[in-house]
Amino acid sequence: MTAATRREHDLLGDRDVPADAYWGVHTLRATENFPITGTPISAHTHLIDALAAVKEAAALANGELGLLEPAKVAAIVAACREIRDGKLHDQFVVDVIQGGAGTSTNMNANEVVANRALELLGHPKGAYAYLHPNEDVNLGQSTNDVYPTAVRIATASAVHGLLDAMAVLQDAFARKAVEFRDVLKMGRTQLQDAVPMTLGQEFSAFAVMLDEDRHRLAEAVELIHEINLGATAIGTGLNAPAGYAEAARRHLADITGLPLVTAANLVEATQDCGAFVQMSGVLKRIAVKLSKTCNDLRLLSSGPRAGLGEINLPPVQAGSSIMPGKVNPVIPEVVNQVAFEVIGNDIAVTMAAEAGQLQLNAFEPVILHSLAESLAHLRAACLTLAERCVTGITANTEVLRAAVENSIGLVTALNPHIGYTAATEIAKEALATGRGVAELVLERNLLPAEKLAALLRPEALAGPRAGIA
Amino acid sequence: MTAATRREHDLLGDRDVPADAYWGVHTLRATENFPITGTPISAHTHLIDALAAVKEAAALANGELGLLEPAKVAAIVAACREIRDGKLHDQFVVDVIQGGAGTSTNMNANEVVANRALELLGHPKGAYAYLHPNEDVNLGQSTNDVYPTAVRIATASAVHGLLDAMAVLQDAFARKAVEFRDVLKMGRTQLQDAVPMTLGQEFSAFAVMLDEDRHRLAEAVELIHEINLGATAIGTGLNAPAGYAEAARRHLADITGLPLVTAANLVEATQDCGAFVQMSGVLKRIAVKLSKTCNDLRLLSSGPRAGLGEINLPPVQAGSSIMPGKVNPVIPEVVNQVAFEVIGNDIAVTMAAEAGQLQLNAFEPVILHSLAESLAHLRAACLTLAERCVTGITANTEVLRAAVENSIGLVTALNPHIGYTAATEIAKEALATGRGVAELVLERNLLPAEKLAALLRPEALAGPRAGIA
Amino acid sequence: MTAATRREHDLLGDRDVPADAYWGVHTLRATENFPITGTPISAHTHLIDALAAVKEAAALANGELGLLEPAKVAAIVAACREIRDGKLHDQFVVDVIQGGAGTSTNMNANEVVANRALELLGHPKGAYAYLHPNEDVNLGQSTNDVYPTAVRIATASAVHGLLDAMAVLQDAFARKAVEFRDVLKMGRTQLQDAVPMTLGQEFSAFAVMLDEDRHRLAEAVELIHEINLGATAIGTGLNAPAGYAEAARRHLADITGLPLVTAANLVEATQDCGAFVQMSGVLKRIAVKLSKTCNDLRLLSSGPRAGLGEINLPPVQAGSSIMPGKVNPVIPEVVNQVAFEVIGNDIAVTMAAEAGQLQLNAFEPVILHSLAESLAHLRAACLTLAERCVTGITANTEVLRAAVENSIGLVTALNPHIGYTAATEIAKEALATGRGVAELVLERNLLPAEKLAALLRPEALAGPRAGIA
Amino acid sequence: MTAATRREHDLLGDRDVPADAYWGVHTLRATENFPITGTPISAHTHLIDALAAVKEAAALANGELGLLEPAKVAAIVAACREIRDGKLHDQFVVDVIQGGAGTSTNMNANEVVANRALELLGHPKGAYAYLHPNEDVNLGQSTNDVYPTAVRIATASAVHGLLDAMAVLQDAFARKAVEFRDVLKMGRTQLQDAVPMTLGQEFSAFAVMLDEDRHRLAEAVELIHEINLGATAIGTGLNAPAGYAEAARRHLADITGLPLVTAANLVEATQDCGAFVQMSGVLKRIAVKLSKTCNDLRLLSSGPRAGLGEINLPPVQAGSSIMPGKVNPVIPEVVNQVAFEVIGNDIAVTMAAEAGQLQLNAFEPVILHSLAESLAHLRAACLTLAERCVTGITANTEVLRAAVENSIGLVTALNPHIGYTAATEIAKEALATGRGVAELVLERNLLPAEKLAALLRPEALAGPRAGIA
Repeated sequence: MTAATRREHDLLGDRDVPADAYWGVHTLRATENFPITGTPISAHTHLIDALAAVKEAAALANGELGLLEPAKVAAIVAACREIRDGKLHDQFVVDVIQGGAGTSTNMNANEVVANRALELLGHPKGAYAYLHPNEDVNLGQSTNDVYPTAVRIATASAVHGLLDAMAVLQDAFARKAVEFRDVLKMGRTQLQDAVPMTLGQEFSAFAVMLDEDRHRLAEAVELIHEINLGATAIGTGLNAPAGYAEAARRHLADITGLPLVTAANLVEATQDCGAFVQMSGVLKRIAVKLSKTCNDLRLLSSGPRAGLGEINLPPVQAGSSIMPGKVNPVIPEVVNQVAFEVIGNDIAVTMAAEAGQLQLNAFEPVILHSLAESLAHLRAACLTLAERCVTGITANTEVLRAAVENSIGLVTALNPHIGYTAATEIAKEALATGRGVAELVLERNLLPAEKLAALLRPEALAGPRAGIA
Repeated sequence: MTAATRREHDLLGDRDVPADAYWGVHTLRATENFPITGTPISAHTHLIDALAAVKEAAALANGELGLLEPAKVAAIVAACREIRDGKLHDQFVVDVIQGGAGTSTNMNANEVVANRALELLGHPKGAYAYLHPNEDVNLGQSTNDVYPTAVRIATASAVHGLLDAMAVLQDAFARKAVEFRDVLKMGRTQLQDAVPMTLGQEFSAFAVMLDEDRHRLAEAVELIHEINLGATAIGTGLNAPAGYAEAARRHLADITGLPLVTAANLVEATQDCGAFVQMSGVLKRIAVKLSKTCNDLRLLSSGPRAGLGEINLPPVQAGSSIMPGKVNPVIPEVVNQVAFEVIGNDIAVTMAAEAGQLQLNAFEPVILHSLAESLAHLRAACLTLAERCVTGITANTEVLRAAVENSIGLVTALNPHIGYTAATEIAKEALATGRGVAELVLERNLLPAEKLAALLRPEALAGPRAGIA
Repeated sequence: MTAATRREHDLLGDRDVPADAYWGVHTLRATENFPITGTPISAHTHLIDALAAVKEAAALANGELGLLEPAKVAAIVAACREIRDGKLHDQFVVDVIQGGAGTSTNMNANEVVANRALELLGHPKGAYAYLHPNEDVNLGQSTNDVYPTAVRIATASAVHGLLDAMAVLQDAFARKAVEFRDVLKMGRTQLQDAVPMTLGQEFSAFAVMLDEDRHRLAEAVELIHEINLGATAIGTGLNAPAGYAEAARRHLADITGLPLVTAANLVEATQDCGAFVQMSGVLKRIAVKLSKTCNDLRLLSSGPRAGLGEINLPPVQAGSSIMPGKVNPVIPEVVNQVAFEVIGNDIAVTMAAEAGQLQLNAFEPVILHSLAESLAHLRAACLTLAERCVTGITANTEVLRAAVENSIGLVTALNPHIGYTAATEIAKEALATGRGVAELVLERNLLPAEKLAALLRPEALAGPRAGIA
Repeated sequence: MTAATRREHDLLGDRDVPADAYWGVHTLRATENFPITGTPISAHTHLIDALAAVKEAAALANGELGLLEPAKVAAIVAACREIRDGKLHDQFVVDVIQGGAGTSTNMNANEVVANRALELLGHPKGAYAYLHPNEDVNLGQSTNDVYPTAVRIATASAVHGLLDAMAVLQDAFARKAVEFRDVLKMGRTQLQDAVPMTLGQEFSAFAVMLDEDRHRLAEAVELIHEINLGATAIGTGLNAPAGYAEAARRHLADITGLPLVTAANLVEATQDCGAFVQMSGVLKRIAVKLSKTCNDLRLLSSGPRAGLGEINLPPVQAGSSIMPGKVNPVIPEVVNQVAFEVIGNDIAVTMAAEAGQLQLNAFEPVILHSLAESLAHLRAACLTLAERCVTGITANTEVLRAAVENSIGLVTALNPHIGYTAATEIAKEALATGRGVAELVLERNLLPAEKLAALLRPEALAGPRAGIA
């Protein structure tokens, strides 16, 4: 049996790595240094793909500029494409929370790409004399431009997944809005009965909120498309030859299909996490709105007998290990929890961004991790809410209509005709006696019966916008 | 007409201050440097009193050790007592948010005390040759021990005010718990009907939550009683003579009536904000619980006709400028908002504490400001909630009882007798048909009528704890 | 002596209000119900002006539609203009933190406008038979459209103030960037020496960050320009006649000079706080960047002898009550604290927005309060930082240049010529021995002396972007 | 080949589950309903062990009370012990973020325990007629008491792990404090040179902070030991026979070795998340302090040539993919990031706790998940910081001493002898001219040379506490 390890060397000395590992000594040390979460960076698929895209673009740019010989370029490109096809992801083993501003992630990528490229060139892993992780794969690059660029590409990819899921949920609400367009109900402000509306209007509002949030997210991702590749260590572009930044950006845009632009000021771009804070803020906004929507769904479906009982959520599992027949709003509940997590992640992103110092922010790994989790969980939450809850919602039309007809809030419509003061007296007596608004108005001869009936017609009360907006 | 100003001197040169101001050149510069909120530190009365207490204690200790002549001691003590009696507070003019780790607050105090003491000694303001703000009033002290000590005393005083207010609110809930001890109602989990309980149990839970929170707050204030007076600049006690720290602590404990102790490690104590973070965390806990309680009160009182309508909050103002007769739960709503503010303040405290560097945290002013606002607003919220809402709450006993009798959740009590599976079938049919649990059980001959009646007696269902706990 | 009070009536009964108060019974009850912060809404000047603008626009629209007689319109408009001229602000006495979704603020405005309009019409205060707070001043309106609209106008006004202040600060940094364009220094990543740059590049990055943040803020305020006036209670427009919404918006845009648009879906707009969450998120972003910038200024100016000592902040006050001659970075410190407060306020806004239920968010008062404080304090912080700190910063040019010449980081520039591996060996030996990079390279004959000198020329190392970007 | 599935039945109908799965239909539906994070609850080992402990204790209590026949008790107990021995963990497949207040987690446990117990009794999986997940394993229980109890036990176990790790880190700092007890250095406040101290004092402060935090954590876990087992659905104890709660608690305390107590008011305990908020607040406190400590370590080790360069962190990996020889403070950096995550998690816990409604908090799953991650990551961070950083720190003694001797801050010690005003003049001139404090004092004849030398002896300046506290 042959040796199960190969020896590698770095600044700190020699170390043996498993012979079949595509990663090398830098990755080995990183796994020892960061035994924090147990979750490797491969959990963030978008990041691995993005790293491979950056390495491929850099190799192509270096080849174009005559800095890297064609055979090396070809081997690196081929290795990167394998990674983007989903291979070798298990070789990205560094912990998602790591020190070093992403250096270990970049080194992990350099080593995996180099060793796979070496194989493709017919050399054994570790034969860095033929193709070197740092001197070839990382040529003209620094972690400080590679890593932020990869984080941005990964984030942009995940955003597109979330946008799609939000559209699915928006559509589910919009279809319910049409379905419920003629279902009259009492609107409520401050949890107190207000004035009539339709259930369609209520669901339409949920759809519109998602539509607005999608636009905000689409705006925020534009900022993410600004990259600093070519900045190298601190933005001065040291060791990156003229033309490299633009060539690398062009190749990267081609590879990813994203409208990437190079930041105008690379020193600023290399230290700035503003776009991540903005993105996280928009994700928090989405979480806030989703949570509010789910709170409403849970409230409207409360019951079955001692609650509002306005709508029914589709039952998806038994609700209790002790209370037979109980069915709970478990899908909105899980979405609420994702929202709480996203709002918490925003604070982690905020603190990490604030902690940047001088020419670099060393804490981008936790920013990436937090954003990636928020994006993935929000996407899952939107799809689950759409498919397992919203599409199956039904309305208790009779309950809803009875509440309108029985309502004191109808008196609001009489303001223009009997005045706020008189209307207040009617409302007060209705509340005290349990009687209806209409009979009290007639009893006091405040309005003729026909006019009153016309004014209190619920359909009229829900306004010109009684359907969906 | 005489000169309206007097000239003072500091490190940066000469400046004229108003002749009648008790504050001097250091305060003048600070007001110019920190035009941030427009709110002077005098808004935090507890802080001004605490500063005066510290200055008085230091003077007494210095006198005792022979470092300050008796006439100066007496004048400083007299000036401090005037401040603690509520005088001269308008002379504390530095902004509540200020740079300098509290130096400007300490200087403001030194100058006011010195100038008032000078007056008492028969000298004009500004005659620092006779009694000097720094060399006499601040003798043996540094902002870095004076300010944290004053912040702790101020915080402890405010905590005691909050503890009292929480006791008032707890008592209001407890009295309602007794009043409602026999009012049966449906308990709810996840907003779905669960099993019966009493309204007294529900209100008792509110009272118990406050009781627990009061205990946590009382524990947290113990940590606040640990002071670093005598640490001087960085905790090494430079320029503080032997015996000074203990003498000053003893006098300060006497003056404030607080069980103050000197920290065992003054270097640590001078840089550490742990006790403030802990205090803020406990205030956040209180806020979370108060907010949950107010959410419940608003939910239980929703209606009047299209809501749960279980309880009535006393009306305290008209609820709407357009909807006549509408009354809203404005008192719980204002408490919710105080809770949101307190939770936000906790983040400000957290970030300020984390930002401390090396031997000092320069950001204690915003910590003091945040804690003081949280404490004062929580106190006001508790008293307002008790007096303007809880004490006037009434129950809709008939509505509550009907919901229990009509409930499917009653079937839970039959689990031990007919099994979870059979009970589930009953619940399912009751829900589908709108029929009652009892009639379905009888129809299927699952239990004899008498036994069923006994099992479903609501009072039994609410448990041995049907009264208040 | 005449009666010092007048009697007013509302839903809850009669109350006496001071005869000279422009506010009435609704305001009276609100001040009793919300004794929370002691700060009246008049503290938020922009809000008072915005309320007056809304009332004026509504009166003009009602007049145009023939719903309000011209004399009443004229009186209301005149009263509103007085308020917008800064008069009567002391009559806005309700607490900044209040329950009721802003109803008390709206009622306070209705009452003040009505009573001042009554006076202008020659009637005594309280003679509501001639002009009524609700039936005339609030005609066609609800708190639920008036208040959010006023909050948006107030916020937009404050944003413009902040944008101006940010421009001042950006300009201060940009001018320093030019001044320091030839000052060489070591760039740092992760607080470790990296590669050379210019101090001009460093200050340029501060300017560019502000420029980007200003653009984000300008985008966020666009969302704030979308109003729901005409929605009335829940967005269905009940009691608002056809044409009213558009007429009111048109007048309001004229009055305020803001490009206001009416939301497409008023039900959604009435319950949605998304634009406030977005705005707060952008303010948090600005706070994060300002805080990072101030952290850098404090770090670069650390010393004077045991710190980095790269730049000098202008002394603005004596720094210590015990350490003579100490000068501290008090201006950046106060900005840091404002940033912490703003980040905390964002959480308060987030929680308040999430807590909205069904057709309304009852917690907009704390959203307004938090945003208003964040905006005002950020504005003050930017101006103070520009005027009292940045404009006076000087560079220790010799210290900075010596650090570059002595640096190991210079070896990075040799990578392309001697390889990463050889360069690593040089760096390692330099660190161990304290020797210089150049002499080690020469000793090992890795490069000829002239070529080495050219490569290590610091000006070259700072890159083609050695000036400001 | 036999059928690969078995058919199970629940409230919603029939479903096939894999024949070899120990989980059943409830778990199956939950995995379909909650495809959120991809992380199963088995990731939280402490939770799985705790669930098994609760099921075992309940079975023993039920057996003792004659409610469950001995053979069933024995089988359930045996199954639970296997789980606590680490077996069957892969059968706990529900997502860590789930709706339903933990019902799916409880159901997953009921099913796994039942099916394993059935096997032990010689029955096939799914033969629930012999032993039923709900009617036997869950006998006398509800998710609403089982789940919170299990979460508390899991949290307590994890806390003990963190306490141990904190002790390791504290010890590492304390040993360095002894090692550095005679190393003189300049103390700094607000990043400006202050007065002398020893490096031992600085490291001692780090140790003391951890010691205090350990005490706070030990206090917080006491609250976690209060359980609500026996509360059943809402705290009224419905279906739990007399004596059950106490018997179950006793067995559970025996099994876990934890000093568990039953809450005095079970209605309150079933809805209250106060202890989790408190625990999270204390974890945040620990995170804040750890982050501050790591900030200091990074600052003190900045350099190697253009930084403070006071201490050296042991190199653990190469620091840069572009800058040869660069070594970065990657271990403190990863700890900072864990701190940011923990502070974010605290917000998630806060929001989840605030969102509880009426008799239950439906959001405990995200509370458990957040706390478990915070506890595990803090533990890893403490151990990593101790082992890979603190124990290898060395001091640059000469650099440190030179800074003291060159310092202007020495003048502070002369205050008591020449006065604050004169000392200020000396400091000012020293700063302006670059000259030393001592020579300026002598030149002005302010003190005799011998006295001056004695006063400025650095060892004296660091105070009686020059060693470690």
